[in-house]
Amino acid sequence: MTDDVTPLPLGRKAALLSGQDFWSTAPIEEAGLPSVVLTDGPHGVRRQEADFEQIGLLQSLPATCFPPAVAVGSSWDPEVAERIGAAVGREARALGVPVVLGPGVNIKRSPLCGRNFEYYAEDPLLAGVLGAAHVRGQQGEGVGASVKHFAANNQETQRMQISADVDERTLREIYLPAFERVVTEARPATVMCAYNKINGVYASQHRWLLTDVLRGEWGFEGAVVSDWGAVQDRVAALEAGLDLQMPGDHGAGNQLVVDAVRAGTMDEAVVDRSARRVAALAGLVTEPTDGVDVEAHHALARELAAGCAVLLKNDDGALPLTGGARIAVVGEFARTPRFQGGGSSHVNATRVDDAVGALRQAVDDVVFAPGFTLDGSGDAPALREEAVAAARDAEVTVVFAGLAEADESEGFDRTTLDLPAVQVELIQAVAAVGARTVVVLSSGGVVSLEGWHDDVDAILAGFLLGQAGGGALADLLTGAVDPSGRLAETIPLRLQDNPSYLNFPGEQGHVRYGEGLMVGYRHYLSVDRAVRYPFGHGLSYTTVETAGLQVRATGDDTATVSMTVTNTGERAGRHVVQVYVATTAGPVRRPVRELRAFAKVSLAAGESRTVGFGLDRRAFAYWDVRGGGWLVAPGEYTVQIGRSAADVVAEATVTLTGDDVVPELTLGSSVAEWFGHPVVGAQLLAGFLETMPEGAGEMHDGMLQMIGSMPMGRFATDFGSAVPMAELERLMAEANAARG
Amino acid sequence: MTDDVTPLPLGRKAALLSGQDFWSTAPIEEAGLPSVVLTDGPHGVRRQEADFEQIGLLQSLPATCFPPAVAVGSSWDPEVAERIGAAVGREARALGVPVVLGPGVNIKRSPLCGRNFEYYAEDPLLAGVLGAAHVRGQQGEGVGASVKHFAANNQETQRMQISADVDERTLREIYLPAFERVVTEARPATVMCAYNKINGVYASQHRWLLTDVLRGEWGFEGAVVSDWGAVQDRVAALEAGLDLQMPGDHGAGNQLVVDAVRAGTMDEAVVDRSARRVAALAGLVTEPTDGVDVEAHHALARELAAGCAVLLKNDDGALPLTGGARIAVVGEFARTPRFQGGGSSHVNATRVDDAVGALRQAVDDVVFAPGFTLDGSGDAPALREEAVAAARDAEVTVVFAGLAEADESEGFDRTTLDLPAVQVELIQAVAAVGARTVVVLSSGGVVSLEGWHDDVDAILAGFLLGQAGGGALADLLTGAVDPSGRLAETIPLRLQDNPSYLNFPGEQGHVRYGEGLMVGYRHYLSVDRAVRYPFGHGLSYTTVETAGLQVRATGDDTATVSMTVTNTGERAGRHVVQVYVATTAGPVRRPVRELRAFAKVSLAAGESRTVGFGLDRRAFAYWDVRGGGWLVAPGEYTVQIGRSAADVVAEATVTLTGDDVVPELTLGSSVAEWFGHPVVGAQLLAGFLETMPEGAGEMHDGMLQMIGSMPMGRFATDFGSAVPMAELERLMAEANAARG
Repeated sequence: MTDDVTPLPLGRKAALLSGQDFWSTAPIEEAGLPSVVLTDGPHGVRRQEADFEQIGLLQSLPATCFPPAVAVGSSWDPEVAERIGAAVGREARALGVPVVLGPGVNIKRSPLCGRNFEYYAEDPLLAGVLGAAHVRGQQGEGVGASVKHFAANNQETQRMQISADVDERTLREIYLPAFERVVTEARPATVMCAYNKINGVYASQHRWLLTDVLRGEWGFEGAVVSDWGAVQDRVAALEAGLDLQMPGDHGAGNQLVVDAVRAGTMDEAVVDRSARRVAALAGLVTEPTDGVDVEAHHALARELAAGCAVLLKNDDGALPLTGGARIAVVGEFARTPRFQGGGSSHVNATRVDDAVGALRQAVDDVVFAPGFTLDGSGDAPALREEAVAAARDAEVTVVFAGLAEADESEGFDRTTLDLPAVQVELIQAVAAVGARTVVVLSSGGVVSLEGWHDDVDAILAGFLLGQAGGGALADLLTGAVDPSGRLAETIPLRLQDNPSYLNFPGEQGHVRYGEGLMVGYRHYLSVDRAVRYPFGHGLSYTTVETAGLQVRATGDDTATVSMTVTNTGERAGRHVVQVYVATTAGPVRRPVRELRAFAKVSLAAGESRTVGFGLDRRAFAYWDVRGGGWLVAPGEYTVQIGRSAADVVAEATVTLTGDDVVPELTLGSSVAEWFGHPVVGAQLLAGFLETMPEGAGEMHDGMLQMIGSMPMGRFATDFGSAVPMAELERLMAEANAARG
Repeated sequence: MTDDVTPLPLGRKAALLSGQDFWSTAPIEEAGLPSVVLTDGPHGVRRQEADFEQIGLLQSLPATCFPPAVAVGSSWDPEVAERIGAAVGREARALGVPVVLGPGVNIKRSPLCGRNFEYYAEDPLLAGVLGAAHVRGQQGEGVGASVKHFAANNQETQRMQISADVDERTLREIYLPAFERVVTEARPATVMCAYNKINGVYASQHRWLLTDVLRGEWGFEGAVVSDWGAVQDRVAALEAGLDLQMPGDHGAGNQLVVDAVRAGTMDEAVVDRSARRVAALAGLVTEPTDGVDVEAHHALARELAAGCAVLLKNDDGALPLTGGARIAVVGEFARTPRFQGGGSSHVNATRVDDAVGALRQAVDDVVFAPGFTLDGSGDAPALREEAVAAARDAEVTVVFAGLAEADESEGFDRTTLDLPAVQVELIQAVAAVGARTVVVLSSGGVVSLEGWHDDVDAILAGFLLGQAGGGALADLLTGAVDPSGRLAETIPLRLQDNPSYLNFPGEQGHVRYGEGLMVGYRHYLSVDRAVRYPFGHGLSYTTVETAGLQVRATGDDTATVSMTVTNTGERAGRHVVQVYVATTAGPVRRPVRELRAFAKVSLAAGESRTVGFGLDRRAFAYWDVRGGGWLVAPGEYTVQIGRSAADVVAEATVTLTGDDVVPELTLGSSVAEWFGHPVVGAQLLAGFLETMPEGAGEMHDGMLQMIGSMPMGRFATDFGSAVPMAELERLMAEANAARG
């Protein structure tokens, strides 16, 4: 086997550039290159049976279904992501799969996105850290990853045609950084381009994205693979940097590539370059291993799932359930768990835990009533009445509510955040009669808690927890495990409050990212909009105090942060330290605060730990559209430690020197920029005022208001300015010389 | 005098293309063309004294200051606009001014825009109807108008450099229609281009805007003049359609034009075309008339102003003031009126009425206390205490609050909606002791009513009412005139609720119109956001009922509306009938409702009148980005009569045939578009299902969800579709033939 495919005939090299079928690359025997299988992931291996080489989502070989990304995001724990990645890698090895597609690190722009369950967070730092951890884990087992869907694939509606119209600062600060982190820190074998267009250009043909940024700026050296069916113009895609077209199209695209080279419209070196990258994937092919310990992986899935669920509300210590209490478990989801999402990531689970069964293993007195059916069939009033009767007799009622598989999936977006009405009615009816009511939610995206939130005592948001989620939920409800998840996505009071609401899912082929970088908590905080639960929120059975925050600049644009966290409660727990940075420095609008570091720490009862972070340049920088780079504005930066994005418990301010930016002066620079220039502004103003008639001093402020944004060149000629052009040119030279 | 300047030497023709100085065009004696003076307007003539040919905003010849556009917008009365235009025209003729610049019909995108006082409304229909009426009135007196600032000039911050980044549907439906209406209905002599860029291109160089749309689509035949100093590249501007550069630049720009022609880079015909247009303005030059009746114009200003103020709140009939009541008048604005805005529209008023003086002419017992100073000087607690003492002794206290000249002006934007704290404290203190409290507001933009709204009994929003505003306010307060203004702009509860909040005033040279067409009430209604007072709101001293609404389609895309309005109160009044259209027809997101017609009708006590409207195609159409035109979607349209945009009092639905649109099918059309095509979808689906394996029927829905947005050509090749390409081509031909 060799990576050097250059000597091969053109047609053979081109054969590498698209799949030989739906799930694998073409083998090139003469170069010793085996076929490379790529399968769906990433929270489990979806290896389709070989005799059905098409898109058939439910047929695949058994594999462990670990918690999907929506849960991993809520763990705020890179260790969870990394261990899932490693486990998936082991299963892939056993199934003879060298590349598992994932993780998905797209930003949850709208809570309606049907594929949000495959994404981590509304925040790019959280998504990027978790995505990188997953890739590290998986590739550590020798199985290639494919970070996806690159980029700005934030909805399912019209996903193969829609153009995400988004400005560069927003791309740089929100939609690209998670990819950047995964690529630069974890070096995935492949990157999967998205279906959609970005600013009118298909991601699969987006040279700036696939080549200038991904390779040029981030140094990516692996292969770019298309999402399945994302290639439109094969030659344009290849030239833009898309190496591998999937699935295969029976050689049609490759023939176009060959024709282009033969016609002299494309350099053969372009083919060589991509063929080498695809050929390199063959290095991941190994003999299948002897298999994995299915029971151990199931136990792992349970352990990890328990670190993901978020305890949203827990009035008067309603949870954990106390030992001898008489418990009613209500809701079909307790018996028929909803634990993963629909679409290409759907795993054929090795087994599935249900919560009611798991609870019965821990608690003696459990009565179950389904309360509703998942498909809306059955006699809803009768089912509800049965559940209400059970609740009436119980000390605690646990209602398992959520969204059915049909309510959310890859391929379409939701149109509401509401739970099905039958479930809301059930919760309300149960809460009206029960001594205590706990609601457990299972859904791929956030659901509205309105209409019943205040009626219940506790809410545990499980999202989708994988095949062992039932057991994990039982562990959390009973207190065997302390809840340690935190929201990776804001739960709003109303769908209409979401900043993308009126610009989602777009129309006539375009979706306007009109909210810019004010996505999720960045928006809610910046417009001071009340939410039900903020990003980062999550309760525990213990309490943690933060003290001794210290922030110290370690250079012009870096700082260190340290503090002591103390478990002041009665039991061990895991605490998420959330570090935000707030600033108004610089010429661009900043969100009220932004997550810049986090860590999940274990604390025994009474234990104190000092937690430290380094904040690098990027923690303070904004994307400067004019200069095309990251800038740290000189000024004050407040480091804030939050229980959530909305609840700051400690803060300290540091002054940073930042970047030394002397603005360039041209005749197109504004009058205000000229008069305010740090090097030449004062002398210009003095000279100008000297020449003005009596009373001009008073005029000055008003005049600057009126014409401050006028280009100086225009002002000098049109408005009878007494500053001669030669003097402007002298000042311009002096100012620009100071830029160094 | 001749319009045909073509035979002139190139240099002489070029001389017409920029001002000879700050305020006039160059005379071309050999062609008999006099210099044409253009002066600022539009609510009064700002004719600068001849010996100060520069920007000096406060020196100008006396003229009547009529109500500025903010007030005219609130009149909802084209007659007010037209009579102001005519009066300004008469004064211009007397001052020897053939062109008065205005009206401004830009949309109030943000309440912070410093120049909102020069604009009519947040709604393009209202702005367009009023602007057209003003032009009709002014040009009816033989004085040319200049509708401005074309286009998307919705802020002052960085106005000469900022790029308004706005999509075409939003331009077509929000930011252009007012200009379109003025141009097509009132044929202004000139259009003034804006300072700013639109999507990166200076308005002064925007060929699509100045030529394709303005002349090509709207048929404009007059001259396009630059805003003062808006020209950047003279040659590019000329080629784009900018005829006259103002002010002059001592021939520099003209020389560039001459050079371009001589170098062969520009056709001389381009010069000829613009020179002819500028030359035609000379036809407006006449001998000055003998002057105007200053007293009559002042009386007119008072009459018209009274139709503009908006009675926002009037609990328990607090207004009108009753005859013998003991009245305290509080607030410096009662003595020192704020009646116009700062900047280029600032008029040197012939006289100024103050409200306290006017009230004293109508009411016997009036005590005055200033309460605060306009510049923040003085002893605020003492001033407040004096006012509180006056209020304590009075039966009614009228507080005159508002913004001082320094708080808002052309040239800069506000950063808050708040009244100065000293005034809020005054209102609260007075309301706490007074028997009844009435607040009269004077400001160029809307101000927040929060913090004191609920403490007072009545609020009269005068905005800026011109030099006779003091008298008009007295007429309204005493009930000599019935208040009939309606809000032309929403008053929000919080600045942060405004849809442009996070995208205003932009940064790094760009302002993103992220809210799209969801501006003003369109936004608040569409996200169901509570506001303090909605667009269209305004009370009267009488009551009006609406009955018998009838809506009838008069074609595929037009309808008539009629209803009866009855004055059910005890006194005469003027009522604004507001006609909105609501629909969800078509493939684009519509605002909840949009103003499509309105009329202001006088009603004697007890009088009934039938009011009818024709709704043309545009009342139902949306801008179709794909086809590049207006489309009326087939479907239901609900015509709603509103007391305001938020308060519908009657509605009726009409079904329109709309446009017969058979979508074009290509291989790039999506699978869903193919299967759903009205002509060939059914046969395609039937053929497809026949070829599918067992169980494919069930798969169909899920599959369509997953790949519905995939281009059919890609689906046919990548996904093993059983539809042969030849069959697709046959269906495509059949489908597209049906498009006729």
